[in-house]
Amino acid sequence: MSRIYAGVDLGGTSFIAVIADKKGKVLGSSDGPTTRGAKAETTIDQIAEHIRAAAKDAGVKTSKIGAIGIGAAGAVDPKRGVVVRAPNLGWNDVPVARILQKKLGPDVVLGNDVQVAIIGEHSYGAAKGTKRAVGVWVGTGIGGGLIVDGEIDKGFRGAAGEIGHMMIKEDGPTCSCGRKGCVEALASRSAMERDVRARPNSAVLKIMKERGKDRMTSSVIEQALDAGDPVMKEVLARAQHYLGLLTGNIVNMFDPEMVVIGGGVAQRLKKKFVEPIAEVARTRFLRPDPHNRIRIEHATLGDYSGALGACALARQGV
Amino acid sequence: MSRIYAGVDLGGTSFIAVIADKKGKVLGSSDGPTTRGAKAETTIDQIAEHIRAAAKDAGVKTSKIGAIGIGAAGAVDPKRGVVVRAPNLGWNDVPVARILQKKLGPDVVLGNDVQVAIIGEHSYGAAKGTKRAVGVWVGTGIGGGLIVDGEIDKGFRGAAGEIGHMMIKEDGPTCSCGRKGCVEALASRSAMERDVRARPNSAVLKIMKERGKDRMTSSVIEQALDAGDPVMKEVLARAQHYLGLLTGNIVNMFDPEMVVIGGGVAQRLKKKFVEPIAEVARTRFLRPDPHNRIRIEHATLGDYSGALGACALARQGV
Repeated sequence: MSRIYAGVDLGGTSFIAVIADKKGKVLGSSDGPTTRGAKAETTIDQIAEHIRAAAKDAGVKTSKIGAIGIGAAGAVDPKRGVVVRAPNLGWNDVPVARILQKKLGPDVVLGNDVQVAIIGEHSYGAAKGTKRAVGVWVGTGIGGGLIVDGEIDKGFRGAAGEIGHMMIKEDGPTCSCGRKGCVEALASRSAMERDVRARPNSAVLKIMKERGKDRMTSSVIEQALDAGDPVMKEVLARAQHYLGLLTGNIVNMFDPEMVVIGGGVAQRLKKKFVEPIAEVARTRFLRPDPHNRIRIEHATLGDYSGALGACALARQGV
Repeated sequence: MSRIYAGVDLGGTSFIAVIADKKGKVLGSSDGPTTRGAKAETTIDQIAEHIRAAAKDAGVKTSKIGAIGIGAAGAVDPKRGVVVRAPNLGWNDVPVARILQKKLGPDVVLGNDVQVAIIGEHSYGAAKGTKRAVGVWVGTGIGGGLIVDGEIDKGFRGAAGEIGHMMIKEDGPTCSCGRKGCVEALASRSAMERDVRARPNSAVLKIMKERGKDRMTSSVIEQALDAGDPVMKEVLARAQHYLGLLTGNIVNMFDPEMVVIGGGVAQRLKKKFVEPIAEVARTRFLRPDPHNRIRIEHATLGDYSGALGACALARQGV
């Protein structure tokens, strides 16, 4: 029997744990919400429970798990296995790898959630087989990652791929990082929500109220588009425009064979999200690409890109 | 005796040929202007003459040259040794490597002038010993190049490093590439000249007239600054600001250990040019760099970065 791996996508609001084989085939899974305000210890207990539940779902003993990977939303130190800072979880310097390894046995490998999702798409999804790719992850913020020679490229300080803070509009809105002009402040889901909220005649606020949502989630965006809401259309188109400029800048600087666009909105809207981005990006290519050799596509692993990426990370080791 | 190499920097208006040893020590050189409107054949004859003159200056026979490198201002196809398009030379599809090899004997390796200059700075100059660096070359245009794992990184299509066409101001002036908002249209020497010409009270135009220059060369810029011309100061500061934003974007995306800034203006003004750029760039770093681990410095090979880079290229082969 080939080795199996456990991967956990540890977001700010939910867990997804999967058990997968080395080819990325999902054998079992378990997911659920995180408990707001819980202690780190409690959350780590919950991670362990989800891994056990996923193993049970897969019909395998946890002792058969070769290694465990975790993608955590926040700043991580992969070498020490420590989540340095995860604001949505309220974590500071939590040595999650060590604690979880003690609880369950297998080695635990830790990575940042976006980088791990890109590893997932590169190992098993849209970017499979590419040697040189860039991931653009659009969610609350905009994250990214570079693949060079078929591996995640961490940069000099482990900080490569921070494309969300590319300055593309100097007098633009203030970003979560405190600066102005970052593409994250123009085109993330949060930026779109801010722009929609500034337009009270949008159908979005009504949909959110009806569905009891306090955030403009990707499914709210989709519902508003399906309802033909002109504000949502306009705000989305604007975000896509800026993401297209970002993608053009990425291609001119880095010349990848693929740009894979992921995160909640891309996963929900797929081509409807990515095609207008690609169209703008291609107007910016300095070196023409008449035969579309450079692919600009959405991520394909859906809810599992993070958890499967964590499995791939576990397989690779630190 | 260790091997020696010939390197030629073939710009739009001048040749520089050097003979150097494998450590980049210049043993002899020869330079001169190109002949405007000359046939490609004539220009290639001149290249051969400059190489022979540099060899004579070095006291070595041309038969002792191990290989010849050429950095040409334009689009090149290194594999075929062809200059695909060099507007300033009026060249289209000129198989310079084959012709020159026939004339002189040694193998000829061809590269783009900016990439070759960056290879020069990486092999023998400011970026020596770096594993991961980015070159930003400011001249008529703005070119660039990436060093990864100690080697020039060409990208998927050989188009990596086109940082001059990074869009950073959507409503900015029209670039030579026909698009708006490229940093080249905001911060190249040509962009600065355009901005100065729009301000007829500048001392620059007077200096150009006195010196019989029809272009605002780097030495004109320096002279105007030395004369305290407020227009030149303001225009330069504006270009430095945009180059700082560019450099910040590069660092956030690519996380290099060094950004080396070269080209005529950097070579002339050195720290006066680079320090204000670095200052703006550092305000944009998402990952703080309190101890300035990331170096932002000017190129140090001066007039020879291109010709010495061509020697390094010759040493490495295609």
